[in-house]
Amino acid sequence: MKYLHTMVRVSNIEDSLDFYCNKLGLKEINRYESDEGRFTLVFLAAPGDEEAQVELTYNWDSEPYDEGRNFGHLAYSVEDIYETCQNLLDHGVVINRPPRDGRMAFIRSPDNISVELIQNGDALPKKEPWASMDNTGNW
Amino acid sequence: MKYLHTMVRVSNIEDSLDFYCNKLGLKEINRYESDEGRFTLVFLAAPGDEEAQVELTYNWDSEPYDEGRNFGHLAYSVEDIYETCQNLLDHGVVINRPPRDGRMAFIRSPDNISVELIQNGDALPKKEPWASMDNTGNW
Repeated sequence: MKYLHTMVRVSNIEDSLDFYCNKLGLKEINRYESDEGRFTLVFLAAPGDEEAQVELTYNWDSEPYDEGRNFGHLAYSVEDIYETCQNLLDHGVVINRPPRDGRMAFIRSPDNISVELIQNGDALPKKEPWASMDNTGNW
Repeated sequence: MKYLHTMVRVSNIEDSLDFYCNKLGLKEINRYESDEGRFTLVFLAAPGDEEAQVELTYNWDSEPYDEGRNFGHLAYSVEDIYETCQNLLDHGVVINRPPRDGRMAFIRSPDNISVELIQNGDALPKKEPWASMDNTGNW
């Protein structure tokens, strides 16, 4: 038995690939399009960790997708949480929960999938502007 | 960057551990309880694949959790999809989408998290009672 992926539905594939790949840093591993079923599946993973994937399901006749409380978030470790969050900020991503503690941050995908970022290993020393940055919304 | 886990909220920890561990076959890797925060986190993974985890968040003052459409499912490969589904059936789990094709099945957790089971490698030859088994509900 082996974990394969977590599937999330996306209402706009360009926006989602921009978020998950260009901004968050995942890479596309595989893609499947069905003209008959009118859907596209895109499999993404962290570079160097290709086996644990996220599957994006894009229904060509999609609609906005609501969120529920039974799903919480996807979590990834990162090498430098400040650098990751600065890069996300520079690309216009809201840091809903900034890494005030040098250890943990939360952002949201365009379809409101919550993504947790965790500093690999020990927390980094606290530093500004992160230490004083307020939360935005929820995650 | 590395995938760590997918977090799901559970409204009853005993029912959830019964489903994810006793029935589905995941094992508990780690547990953290906070008396102050009144929550328990349990990290589960497929045996032999401990790094890709599911985090169960149990809030002690929990309530039923609704589902949204932005989250799709968790997916695991299994060695014999008929054996896995028979074992689930024997333990009272509804097979929402039976493996009619010898390849794919869907079930639901007690909090309605959809779980996809995929036959490892090639599909198994079609066989009864699976080939004729109807769907139940949605997934």
